[in-house]
Amino acid sequence: MDADAPIGVFDSGVGGLTVLRALTARLPDEHTIYLGDTARVPYGTRSGEVVTRYALMSARHLARHRIKLLVVACNTVSAHSLPALASALPIPVLGVIEPGAQLAAARTRGGAIAILGTPATIASGAYQRTLRRLAPLAPVIARACPLFVPLAEEGWTDGEVPRLVAERYLADLRRARVDTAVLGCTHYPLLARTIAEVLGPEVAIVDSAEAITRSVSTLLREHGLLRESGDSAARHRTLCTDVPERFRSVAERFLGRPVGEVELVDLAT
Amino acid sequence: MDADAPIGVFDSGVGGLTVLRALTARLPDEHTIYLGDTARVPYGTRSGEVVTRYALMSARHLARHRIKLLVVACNTVSAHSLPALASALPIPVLGVIEPGAQLAAARTRGGAIAILGTPATIASGAYQRTLRRLAPLAPVIARACPLFVPLAEEGWTDGEVPRLVAERYLADLRRARVDTAVLGCTHYPLLARTIAEVLGPEVAIVDSAEAITRSVSTLLREHGLLRESGDSAARHRTLCTDVPERFRSVAERFLGRPVGEVELVDLAT
Repeated sequence: MDADAPIGVFDSGVGGLTVLRALTARLPDEHTIYLGDTARVPYGTRSGEVVTRYALMSARHLARHRIKLLVVACNTVSAHSLPALASALPIPVLGVIEPGAQLAAARTRGGAIAILGTPATIASGAYQRTLRRLAPLAPVIARACPLFVPLAEEGWTDGEVPRLVAERYLADLRRARVDTAVLGCTHYPLLARTIAEVLGPEVAIVDSAEAITRSVSTLLREHGLLRESGDSAARHRTLCTDVPERFRSVAERFLGRPVGEVELVDLAT
Repeated sequence: MDADAPIGVFDSGVGGLTVLRALTARLPDEHTIYLGDTARVPYGTRSGEVVTRYALMSARHLARHRIKLLVVACNTVSAHSLPALASALPIPVLGVIEPGAQLAAARTRGGAIAILGTPATIASGAYQRTLRRLAPLAPVIARACPLFVPLAEEGWTDGEVPRLVAERYLADLRRARVDTAVLGCTHYPLLARTIAEVLGPEVAIVDSAEAITRSVSTLLREHGLLRESGDSAARHRTLCTDVPERFRSVAERFLGRPVGEVELVDLAT
């Protein structure tokens, strides 16, 4: 495996750009190639078999770009398809759930751990199962927050509306001795400040984008696969399966910088 | 063509059930067969070509059930794909946009007409073009309201949050001499009361589900295709391409009654 090869980042759509953002902030010398399956987003409303079929098509496409590591930014794919992906690709495959749960288990100080996610992620039970293994004594409260994704995509991340929505989803967690909350969806980091305000200063917020970035960094270092900056700057490519009208504006908000050229790919070929 | 044949209703997902609800309320003796392409919802973020390809697959599947008429409940398909559908099927194909625009043109009393829809419907310009033809003197204000769909699916249709969201999208329409507003999305009838309260009592609300139901009723009557109730009750079938976790609860809210058995179909075969 070549340290100079890019890190592949895969998501069902635009949300995984928050993971890419965290990744390039911590590992600025790494080449990256991002694939958003925007033609088939959202995965969260599909059955597990369909999600795995779609994920395999995307992962195989990225593998053809000779990536050294696949980061699965999508919580739904991380919940359903990691074993299938790992057995189909000759490289390490990392999902967001294990690193997020690990960080939460390390942060909790005897209180309850709250998992915030989409209805599909919560219903999959993946975070709950992982936390039972990593933090068997911690009570876990899973909470689906369906409106957080459209709020983040609309750019309504501060102010009265997101605050009221967060209150409605989360207010009772304040009475449940929660001391750690996992942002279990790639969109939620955009609402982190509002979520933190509603939960209060005693609650540690675990961002799964940050968590997986730590895991990637550790894995690359341990295997001697960190790229040396040398004299060439890191290159970043963005691939999508469809380019909807609003893609660029939403993508820029998620990535924190202009997204640059977006290459359209057809996974069926 | 057989008057006893069912009416086919097609939508990208669950939203079209508001059209089915209006249809069965006005034409209670008609058999219906509903197809929601829930494996590929939402269409609104796809390109026009992809939408038409998906719509053709769904429409051909419904045609094999020997429907007498196809109602396209989806605004995105109605905006992009009616000519392709009409030329592929041996039966009449009705979309929601023309009936909605007709009713708005009949209702306006010299003020402006507001079109409320998803970003994709608004960007398609389909309502705007149709109204320029049907009501050439009426100013048209098109307004994308992306959060209305997730609010309707979450069941947050009354109270503080939808009210604030509607205020943010619509408050300035009160100052623009709007006298008629078209609910240009199948999800919006669930928010009709909140929308009406924000727009004020002078604004007539045109529900495109009601509008297409009138058109269907007229067309069937004119062609002698209305079903006689006879001694058998109307039958209603519901087909989907994927059955997500929350489908039943959302579907019941949209349909106003339990959805009953949902048959899973594979459009690829």
